[in-house]
Formats: sequence, structure tokens, C-alpha cells
Amino acid sequence: MRASSEGAAPVRAADGPSPELNEVIDRVGLVDHHAHSVVSGTVDRDAYAFMLDESDRPASARAAGLDTQVAFAVRRWCAPLLGLAPDASLDEFLRARLALSARDAVARFLPSARLDRLLVETGYRGDELMATPQLERLAETPVSTVARLETIAESVATEAPAARDFADAVRRSIEAALAAGAVGLKSIVAYRAGLDVDPRRPSDAEVERAAAAWLATLGPGSRPRLVDPVLLRFLLWAAVDTGRPLQVHTGFGDPDLHLRRSDPLLLTDFIRLAEGRGPILLLHTYPFHREAGYLAQMFEHVYVDVGLAVNYTGAQSPHVIAESLELAPFRRILFSSDAWGLPELHLIGSLLFRRGLSRVLGQWVVDGDWPLADAERVVRMIAAENARRVYGLSDEPDEGRGAVEPDRPAPDES
Amino acid sequence: MRASSEGAAPVRAADGPSPELNEVIDRVGLVDHHAHSVVSGTVDRDAYAFMLDESDRPASARAAGLDTQVAFAVRRWCAPLLGLAPDASLDEFLRARLALSARDAVARFLPSARLDRLLVETGYRGDELMATPQLERLAETPVSTVARLETIAESVATEAPAARDFADAVRRSIEAALAAGAVGLKSIVAYRAGLDVDPRRPSDAEVERAAAAWLATLGPGSRPRLVDPVLLRFLLWAAVDTGRPLQVHTGFGDPDLHLRRSDPLLLTDFIRLAEGRGPILLLHTYPFHREAGYLAQMFEHVYVDVGLAVNYTGAQSPHVIAESLELAPFRRILFSSDAWGLPELHLIGSLLFRRGLSRVLGQWVVDGDWPLADAERVVRMIAAENARRVYGLSDEPDEGRGAVEPDRPAPDES
Amino acid sequence: MRASSEGAAPVRAADGPSPELNEVIDRVGLVDHHAHSVVSGTVDRDAYAFMLDESDRPASARAAGLDTQVAFAVRRWCAPLLGLAPDASLDEFLRARLALSARDAVARFLPSARLDRLLVETGYRGDELMATPQLERLAETPVSTVARLETIAESVATEAPAARDFADAVRRSIEAALAAGAVGLKSIVAYRAGLDVDPRRPSDAEVERAAAAWLATLGPGSRPRLVDPVLLRFLLWAAVDTGRPLQVHTGFGDPDLHLRRSDPLLLTDFIRLAEGRGPILLLHTYPFHREAGYLAQMFEHVYVDVGLAVNYTGAQSPHVIAESLELAPFRRILFSSDAWGLPELHLIGSLLFRRGLSRVLGQWVVDGDWPLADAERVVRMIAAENARRVYGLSDEPDEGRGAVEPDRPAPDES
Repeated sequence: MRASSEGAAPVRAADGPSPELNEVIDRVGLVDHHAHSVVSGTVDRDAYAFMLDESDRPASARAAGLDTQVAFAVRRWCAPLLGLAPDASLDEFLRARLALSARDAVARFLPSARLDRLLVETGYRGDELMATPQLERLAETPVSTVARLETIAESVATEAPAARDFADAVRRSIEAALAAGAVGLKSIVAYRAGLDVDPRRPSDAEVERAAAAWLATLGPGSRPRLVDPVLLRFLLWAAVDTGRPLQVHTGFGDPDLHLRRSDPLLLTDFIRLAEGRGPILLLHTYPFHREAGYLAQMFEHVYVDVGLAVNYTGAQSPHVIAESLELAPFRRILFSSDAWGLPELHLIGSLLFRRGLSRVLGQWVVDGDWPLADAERVVRMIAAENARRVYGLSDEPDEGRGAVEPDRPAPDES
Repeated sequence: MRASSEGAAPVRAADGPSPELNEVIDRVGLVDHHAHSVVSGTVDRDAYAFMLDESDRPASARAAGLDTQVAFAVRRWCAPLLGLAPDASLDEFLRARLALSARDAVARFLPSARLDRLLVETGYRGDELMATPQLERLAETPVSTVARLETIAESVATEAPAARDFADAVRRSIEAALAAGAVGLKSIVAYRAGLDVDPRRPSDAEVERAAAAWLATLGPGSRPRLVDPVLLRFLLWAAVDTGRPLQVHTGFGDPDLHLRRSDPLLLTDFIRLAEGRGPILLLHTYPFHREAGYLAQMFEHVYVDVGLAVNYTGAQSPHVIAESLELAPFRRILFSSDAWGLPELHLIGSLLFRRGLSRVLGQWVVDGDWPLADAERVVRMIAAENARRVYGLSDEPDEGRGAVEPDRPAPDES
Repeated sequence: MRASSEGAAPVRAADGPSPELNEVIDRVGLVDHHAHSVVSGTVDRDAYAFMLDESDRPASARAAGLDTQVAFAVRRWCAPLLGLAPDASLDEFLRARLALSARDAVARFLPSARLDRLLVETGYRGDELMATPQLERLAETPVSTVARLETIAESVATEAPAARDFADAVRRSIEAALAAGAVGLKSIVAYRAGLDVDPRRPSDAEVERAAAAWLATLGPGSRPRLVDPVLLRFLLWAAVDTGRPLQVHTGFGDPDLHLRRSDPLLLTDFIRLAEGRGPILLLHTYPFHREAGYLAQMFEHVYVDVGLAVNYTGAQSPHVIAESLELAPFRRILFSSDAWGLPELHLIGSLLFRRGLSRVLGQWVVDGDWPLADAERVVRMIAAENARRVYGLSDEPDEGRGAVEPDRPAPDES
């Protein structure tokens, strides 16, 4: 398998005012540091509209899901790969798209994302999704995995351990996931309890008590769902103790989220207390991306992205990307798509990101605010270098490596 | 009476980069789904400055109210209708404007808003405002009314009902208002208690107890003001139980508002609990319009606008409009002006909205991000179609009707 | 000493689309109403990177502090004043810059900021900074001071007063600072307790009790640090009681801040209760600048700036400036840099502000949304007139004075 950045002619997405920068942006390979796999079955029209929408209301998706920024972006960028004009009508588009099998759709769309590596989180509805080796082959892209903490804990719970062994069993499972190749860990505490959870490390006694209470509710064959705030906090601390990257869902997501409890600023005290351990990656962050940028500026172990928001704001995403480039040091910003289910979401994540970056940075270059060389350097950082450094992905082709200045020491995160 | 969209030559406000789209936007008739009537008396210079300002501080208004985005927009768009140049000085402008009677001002300005229908909320300082039939005639625009829930409850309270009959009396008054032609209901719980009110439906006993306590404070001839949170919640539930549209003030407003308690996200749990009843329309929403857009994406019964903010941000309003087009499905976005008192506020609400939309959508069209046909379709949805569907306004001229795709089912909101 | 606005040829920063407005913006002298002095010693490469970063994490600053918007802006605008090209490489830039002494750096950079007056707050790490007379001479700019309330109270505490005398002693020290020439007072309650402090004026008994408790913790030679919320509230009230301008830190800042407790909306009740006393100036405000603009629109004694944010968002600052011009009346917006330590921060504060204003207002002029004359008037208000009026700085050259309309009464703030 080869990395896609050596692959076929790129889709030309970058249309910013600097032709030189557009060229760099269209050619650079991206590391998508947070996404999911694709559905393994075929989809009909309703299911398709539904998957374009973060809402879980089917009627809503059917009626409104196709009149959204994300649906317009999917049509605009995927139609040409189906042999249609970029402004093909919705009906033409759906006719061509829904004729593809899941495998054909991956092979048709994903290589054009031109990813150097794709990191997929495997914990969410994984049984409906394509297995990693098949995805890797069809996408023509190396795939690594990120393990979801809550899924690990729930899996441990099904083995009915003694409450006093629960913490160690979870820690062992986390280590096993990392040993098996996972390059990071992910927390969805925002969904399960809110980011306003107590930031302190729970004591062993607290964890044991909480585990006992939870495990007592589980019968044989029951499907455990972890919502206990003590155990959720324990997972956060178990993750940063490994020194490996911890992704935390923040900002917008599905309807079972309470958005007010997803403001990354609610993590401030946890971030402070966890300093000196592993890096913390704040995912999505929208509409709190400015607040997240503040945290990235303040704390050297904090990283941010505006994945998901780029896809869901579509034609307006250059504006969101520009806002994400305000306070955060450029070495603390990563690219992600948070695509789930449909390979076109991986593709437009890449294309919209390239397009937005080309307009925002390109304008700064032509206005004389940024030197072209610095703009190119920042593109390479955000596109892939930062992710490689944080996740320890040292084995990929690195178009940008030559641009790192020799006297700039690498930061000392693990 | 005819709808204004067939009326006089439109003011050309749309100046976006797509001439075809500008043409559509300048011609489309708008449904202004939330505004108020105009003052029936004449205004002097101080009163005029004061009414341009959401502040209730007269000294403030006098000194600063004319150096604001909204005042600049009023001058720029209304001066030509007074026979002046668009950049006429403030003094020239005021001389011409203050010479008009209230009736002449309506007749001069309001028809150029080119509204297909104007929905006025009648509960706020209604005794200072022009009656609906006169407004309708002078504005050359069909007018419908929206009833304010708190005003209904306060009116019931003046009749000194028994506490145990209060709930039913309010429900009957709401039904009577709807039967008399009101097309929706409005809540100002944000002002009276904050949107962080308990979201649950209060029990009959709770309502009776709260009504008893409130009614006991009222003497004969007293002017009741409802601030009890139980009764305010009761009104929200009484409104959604009717299945008719419920407008909720969110975001910025007068100084007696606490803006932090007006974040529409505070309504999340109420929205969840009220699913399956009538549509909920989040008014204004600024500066929480991104949060509101998230709610509109998540819940099929939630609609949003950025009325008021468009007027008050003036030349900067295209930027606010662009942000309102990020997450919300285009079928869940409505137009409003929230104009109160001065007909120029209705006018600039319309003109700034057309102008902003033409720039934002027009740029997406010329950049190749959106097909022109979709941009036109979205204009028609937001301008009028969404409001017609949600409020059941089926009798107006509908320039956009032919553009609805035949295979797109209407959503199932009432 | 002469005011710098009569000085050397200005750096041409304004590049907006209106040449006439650019000319006005490049020539107008600014009043920087909130900044600090510069370090009096020399700096090495690490210290330099560190001072560009609001973070206090040295490793972070070293690794990432030079790849930020603020560092890019410093290089772009200061390189030409060092005889280098604007796109000089980082190494070239640092070689030339680090060869300058502290005094040479001030003389090289600060006059080009073209300030009519610089207001420096003297309370933060003042012993590392250059004394005001020397700064004034090297900067070729009149300097006034603003006194930090917490520093005054801590200084009183070192004199070991009786608890019952504490309040009066603090009030006397505040009066003495004002009598000695301080033009305003500054509160950092956001850092010490959060803006969610009880807004009410504490009683004498409460203050005495809190003072007794605090003073009892202080031994001889100890360095007091005031964090008691009662005493911090007392300082706010003591400040507004003087009728003189009170600056309040809001929004982003150093890592010991909790950003959620810095939302200026948390001050709403204090602002209401303190109406009719001195003006309140909300500093920085980002990312809550829209919320701050709402407060400035609502309350006639509230003023706002986006200082600090302009420097730290660099090439993206025109966007932040545009957002700061949404709701706030233009008479309630001030300019500041919040520069600390490095004179290049004072310089880029001025240059980025001019540049951003020229693009934002210039676009509104060329689009026909604002008359040129009004744009020029607003430039003069924000650049200097508002600060002169609020702080009573009547003695400076006033390029804009002729533009004040004779029939516009001055607001009645002190």
C-alpha cells in the first residue's frame, strides 16, 4: 500500500488568491486525525439524507437534511467524481450516487481526499462500519485507530470483574489497545456527563464504590452504558497517565449532547491539573473554537481542531477556519473531518479544508500580512506535521519535512 | 388591498456579485414573521434617536443613538425616499424626516419593504402604536397578528378569576386569540425569568398555587405584571399544546434583559420535552445565533431568525447573516425585522436582509460553491416559504412556489 | 516634548479600499488608553518568544510562541524599521532585533505608533519595567498613568493598618493616586475572583471583617496578594464612587485567568447598580466582544475595546475589529494595545488597528453603506476623541476636533 499523497491527480479545491500557495495546498497530504469508518451496507435516499445530518430525527433529516451546507458541499465536490457537473441537480446526483455499493463509494471518493493517514475512532456503532483493513485498501490510505475510553470500560464491565479490580482491568485494557496499535484515546464525557464534571482525579476508593454501584446494575447479557461521572473522570485520568494523546469531544455533535456542557472552557481545571502528562486534543470545538484557541495558546499540552464544523458549515467554512487561526499557535492546530459513515464526508472534509485554508492564508499573503514561506510552513504544520508529532506517526512520507527550521527544537510533548 | 410584492419599483438593495441572484432577491416578497406596529404620534429629534436604540437611557440615546450602525443604515436607505442623497448629512435627514406625520412616514417607507405579509406582535406598548387595519392600509401589506402570552395572562388576571380557574381561563384566552386570527404566540420568558427556567410542565396544583399567590397581590385597578416562573412555564406549555407556532425571545434586547439568561441553549431541555407539539421559533438569537443554528439542526420543530440583529448591526449585517447560514437547515431559517415604532426599521430590516443575502449567497455562487438554482431556492425558502408553511399562511402570492421540487415532501410540522 | 502625531513620516498601514479614508487613518494620532511600559533590560531569544505569548509556560513559548499571529505581525511591521524586508526570515529578524538595547528598541519602534497619548497601567510587574519619564522621552509620546486597584490595596496592607481603618486608607490612597496624576483606575477582579463576584456594595462591617481576616494572614515583610472577594468588590465600588474612569479586565489574558469567569456579561448587575457614577471601560473583551458591545449599547456609562485581541489575532484582526463595530455605539468604543514589555507590541497595536479599521470602514464606504464623512468622524472618535472625553484629556493636539458637529451635545459622563 502506498500513501495517497503520491497518488492520482488531485482534485483542485484550493482557489485562494495566491497561486503558489494553492499549489502547495492542493498537493500536501493530510493526516485526518479524527474520523470514523464508513457504513458497510448500501444506503437508500432516506438513509443518505439522514447520514448527512447530525440530527437523529429521521423525519427531520428527510425533509431538511438535503437543504443544508453539508449536503450542498457533498453534491458540489462529489458530483464530478460521479461523472456529473458540479451543479448537477439533487435528483441526478442521488441517482448516480445511490447506484454505488459501499465498497465502490469508498474507492470512488476516498482516494481523492489525498490523506497521508486516516485515524479512525472505532467505538461508535462500529458493528455497522467497514473493518479497518478493507477501508485501508479501498481508500488507498494507511489507517490507524483511536480507542474510545467509554467503550473500553463498558467492555470490561461485561466481564463482570470485582469492583475493586475494575480500575486495574480498565487500565490494562487501555494499555492493551495501545499495544495493539491504537495511536490515541478518545473521551466522550461531554455526552455522558458534560465537560463540567469534577476535574480532580478520583481516589481509588471512589472509583471502587462507583464501579460497584454500576456493575450491580448489570445483568448477564445486558449492554452496559457508562454514565457515572466518577468513572468517566477516572477514564480521563487513566488516559492522560499513559502519556498518549487524549482526544476529547467538545462543541457540537448529536442531539443527545447538551451543547452548553460541551464548552471546552469547562475543561480548564482538568487541563491545568493534568499538565505534564499526555497531550489533550480538543475535537470540533465549534461554536467555542475561539475559546478552544485560547486554551491552546495558554497550555502547551492542548491542541485544537475545527473538524466536523468544516463539513457542516460548507461554503461558510473558510470563515470558521479563519476564526480557528486567531489565538491558537499554529503548532497546536490539527486537521480532522470527523466523517462518519459516508466516504464523501471524508472527501469534503479534506477539500473544504484545503479550500478554506487557501482563501484565508492566501489573502494574508497577497495582502502582505504573511510571507509566502511562512504560509507554506503553516500549511504543512496543520495539514500533517503537528499530527505526526503528537501521535508519533513518524513513518509517513513528509513533503513538508524539509521546511522545518533546523534551529527550532521540537516541543517536549511525548 | 394587494400584496406589496406586486407594487412599485423595488429599491435596489441587492449588490452581491451574482446579477441573476440580485434580481431574484430584489424582487422576492418577504414575510416578516416578527415585528411590531409603528407609533401613532409624531416624534421629535430626541424621541427619534431614542427609538433607534434598544437602550432605554434617554441621555444615552440622545448622545450616542445617532452614531450607531442602525442609525447609519436608516439614513442611508431612507434618505432617497425623502428625496435626499443616500449620504445626506444627519441634519438634512432629520429635517426632512421629522416633518413627516406618523401616517405619512408609514406610507413613505413601508411599501418599499416589499413585504408579502407582516406579522405584528401586539403585546408590547400596544396603546402607543397604530392599529392593525390602519397599518395594513398605509403599508400596502397584509398584516397578521401574534399574541403575547404574558399579556394574555395579565389580562386574565385583571378579571380576578379564582386561582383554580386561572389555567383554564388562560387556555381559553389563548384559543380565543387564535380563533380571532392570531397566527402564532410569543413568549418573553427571557425577560421575565430567564430561559433557564425549569423546563418541565408544571402540575395543575403548582399552577393553582402560583396563580393564587400572584392574584392575591393584585388590587382593583392594579396593572398586573407576570414574573412568576411557574406561571411563565405554564404559558410555554399552554402554547405548544395548541400546536401553533410559539415565538420565543432569545438573545439581545432591552436593558431589563439579562443577556446571559437569554442564550437559546438554555431552552434545550424544554425543546426536547416539547417535541411532537407545535413549532418553536427562536427570535433574534444574536449573539447566540450559532448556538441557535445548532438547535435548528438537531430538532425538527425548531426555527431561527437573526431579526433585530440585522438592523442593529447595519453595514456589518452580511457577516451576521452568513453566520446564521452555518448549521441551521435552510428550511428552518426565517426572516424578521423585529421593527418597533418607526416604519424605517421595517424598511431597513427588509433592505439589509436582501443586501446581506445577496452578498453571502452571491459569493458562494460565483465561487462555484453553490449552484445558482439552489441559491434561488434557498432565497425563496428563507424569504417567505418557510414562514408560510410554519404559520399556515397559504393565501399569499408566492413567487417561489414554482421552484419547489415536486418530489420533496413537505415536512410534517402542523 | 511633542506629541508624535506631528512627528516623522507615518508607516503606511492602512490598505483599505478607500484611499481618502486610508489617508485619514494613517495620519490620525491615537490615544492608547490601556497599555503597560516596556522591559528595562535586554532580552534573549527565549525571553523574546516568551513575551510574545500570553502563556506563562516557557517551554510552550519557546516552541510555539514564534509561530503565532502576533509573532508574524511583529516581524512584518518591525522588520522594515530594522532595515529589513517585511518578509525577512525569522532568523534575520531576531539577529537584528536582539542586537538592540531596551532603550534603542523603544526609540526605534514606539514613535512610529504615532500616539497622541499613551496610558500605562503601572501595577503589573512594574519593577521590571522602564519608568514613565524615560518611556515618555524615548517614545516621543506623552504618557499618563492608570492605577491598579489591587496594587493600591496591597500596598495599604503592607502598612498594617487597623482593620476598621482599612477602607478609609484605601480610599485615601486611591484619591492620592488620582491627585498625583493618574487618569483612571483598573480592576483585575477577573483574575482574582472572577467577574461573577457579588455585584452589591459591601457594607462597612463586611469590609472590616474581610480586612481583619486578610491582614491577620500577613506577617512583616510578606508580599500581600488580595483575593478576598469582599475586598475586591469594595475596590470596584470605591473606584466608581470617585466618578473617574474604571477599567475592568474582561475576556482573555494570562493562564491564571479562568476565561469563563471573565465574560463581561457577568458584570451586568454591577453595571446596573453603579449607574450614575463614573464610566466603566471593559478591556479586551475577546472572545466576548459582541456581548460587551451589547452592554455598551444598553448602558451609557459603559465603554469597550478589543485591545490585546487585535495584537494576538494579527492578520485576522480586521475581522475582530469588524465584530466590535456591531452593537456598540461608536462613541463608546476606544483604542488600546494592552502592550506589555516589548515596544513592538505598542507599535503593532497601532498599525493593526489602523489597518483593520481601514479595511472594514473603507469597504462600507466603497459599498455605499456609509458616507465617507461619517467614516472619518467614526475614525476620529475611536482613535482619540472618545478617550479624551472619558479620561478628561483635553490638552492634546486634536486633529479631529473640527469634525465634531456643533449641535451634538457632549454626553454627561464626568
